[in-house]
Amino acid sequence: MRNFNETNIITAVIGRLENCRTPRAKVISTALVRHLHDFVREVEPTQAEWEQAIDFLTGTGHMCNATRQEFILLSDALGVSMLVDAINHRLPGTATETTVLGPFYVQHAPEVAIGSRICDLAEGPSMLVEGSVRSVSGKALANASVDIWHADAAGFYDVQKDEAKPSGRARVRTDADGRFWVYGVVPAAYPIPNNGPVGQMLEAQGRHPFRPAHVHFMVAAPSHETLVTHLFLADSDYLDSDVVFGVKDTLIEALDVAQPGITPYGAVVEDAVPVLRRDFVLAESLTQTSR
Amino acid sequence: MRNFNETNIITAVIGRLENCRTPRAKVISTALVRHLHDFVREVEPTQAEWEQAIDFLTGTGHMCNATRQEFILLSDALGVSMLVDAINHRLPGTATETTVLGPFYVQHAPEVAIGSRICDLAEGPSMLVEGSVRSVSGKALANASVDIWHADAAGFYDVQKDEAKPSGRARVRTDADGRFWVYGVVPAAYPIPNNGPVGQMLEAQGRHPFRPAHVHFMVAAPSHETLVTHLFLADSDYLDSDVVFGVKDTLIEALDVAQPGITPYGAVVEDAVPVLRRDFVLAESLTQTSR
Repeated sequence: MRNFNETNIITAVIGRLENCRTPRAKVISTALVRHLHDFVREVEPTQAEWEQAIDFLTGTGHMCNATRQEFILLSDALGVSMLVDAINHRLPGTATETTVLGPFYVQHAPEVAIGSRICDLAEGPSMLVEGSVRSVSGKALANASVDIWHADAAGFYDVQKDEAKPSGRARVRTDADGRFWVYGVVPAAYPIPNNGPVGQMLEAQGRHPFRPAHVHFMVAAPSHETLVTHLFLADSDYLDSDVVFGVKDTLIEALDVAQPGITPYGAVVEDAVPVLRRDFVLAESLTQTSR
Repeated sequence: MRNFNETNIITAVIGRLENCRTPRAKVISTALVRHLHDFVREVEPTQAEWEQAIDFLTGTGHMCNATRQEFILLSDALGVSMLVDAINHRLPGTATETTVLGPFYVQHAPEVAIGSRICDLAEGPSMLVEGSVRSVSGKALANASVDIWHADAAGFYDVQKDEAKPSGRARVRTDADGRFWVYGVVPAAYPIPNNGPVGQMLEAQGRHPFRPAHVHFMVAAPSHETLVTHLFLADSDYLDSDVVFGVKDTLIEALDVAQPGITPYGAVVEDAVPVLRRDFVLAESLTQTSR
């Protein structure tokens, strides 16, 4: 086959996908080509615009390193991450809702004991994070792993600060009653890293780069769907214009104040401290999932 | 706005594009989001597949350097480059047809005198490349710039060989009669670089990575559309399955043999030599274009 033009090239390219190694590769490749060509035929890019697109993707790739994932930022800022999240979490209504993983998740965060302080005090005012993990059936889930990561009071994650050790980031395991607590700091709203191609895209789109203040959680327990979510602080700016479209009403929490003593979650409070509190509810899975 | 799900997020993201800095940015961004979300809703990627897509794009970016452009390879292999080329070259039927630029074009190739040898003899058997440049009106175009670049007899370009100086690559200018000639070598069919993500994609799609043997040309003259094209060797394999969908019947040339003496293009032939010959015809432009 030869002599491809605007009219017949789509058929030629899709025809070339006949021998995909797996049915799934064929489904994905065929849909990708069809939607990509539809997009190109609709906008009719000039050669210069095509070159800009190549440069944009190349620059986005070059921005990616061990602590910066510009393609996740791109997916987030175009609403794709939330769409994929929604497609993959058609959960029972009683399970805690999900939201995006974000680009600052780090695998194998240090596992700490319940009650640990996971931030240096220089990073902001203390905040108690306490809660529980249970199944939709109501059963408390002991020894569930709870990954917690959040920005500091200036809006930066540890991986953005070239720090030698993790901070504002830890994994804790629930106790026999499914409870956990650690001390972090009150996180600030922050702009997603906008000194790269995604920042330039947001600028061209006339959009601000901010996310409302939040704390990330990844909660995993055997025989349950791993929960990836945030809690958003109720008094934060940008709840209605999160650059990554991640806010859900059920994930917004007002900070309470924990008084000196022992909280219902077993947390030891010496001085009155802001507290972020949540009882997480995991959907049951047929196949065991964990990360 | 909050609480985005599979149904409403597309509206939310497109709504966020209201304030694009230019109308064109709005058109492109809106179409991109619409087609991208359509694609995702159709294939319903798992989280693991989404992560693979992020990794694929990141790896593609990391493959790009001064002499390797993996995103152009990706665009080429998905037929997007030829589609963009077709959209941008709705030329009068008498003009020479266009095809893809490819990833091995280098700006500012060395300008050489007519009659130069642009390849080391170690790179393969000599081939005379001669031709002319004229306007669709029939007028010979003197001093037109003709960029020529091609693979060697082993199927490699200079930029793939870490060579200190350009080879198989030059710019020559047409003489007063619109003619040019240089000596290169007979190029071989070759696989596009397939040791990266695009090679892995082709493998997953059950496709071979080969292009038929060809020589690239970029021909530019004032007041004319710059012509980016190839000539394909008529006896090459893969003319019907070019991995980048670039072959057009009008761009296929059988090598002739030039006998000792002076050719009609003014080329000096000492020993009988294969010759690739073409009279290029440029479309007139309203605005001057050159690169």
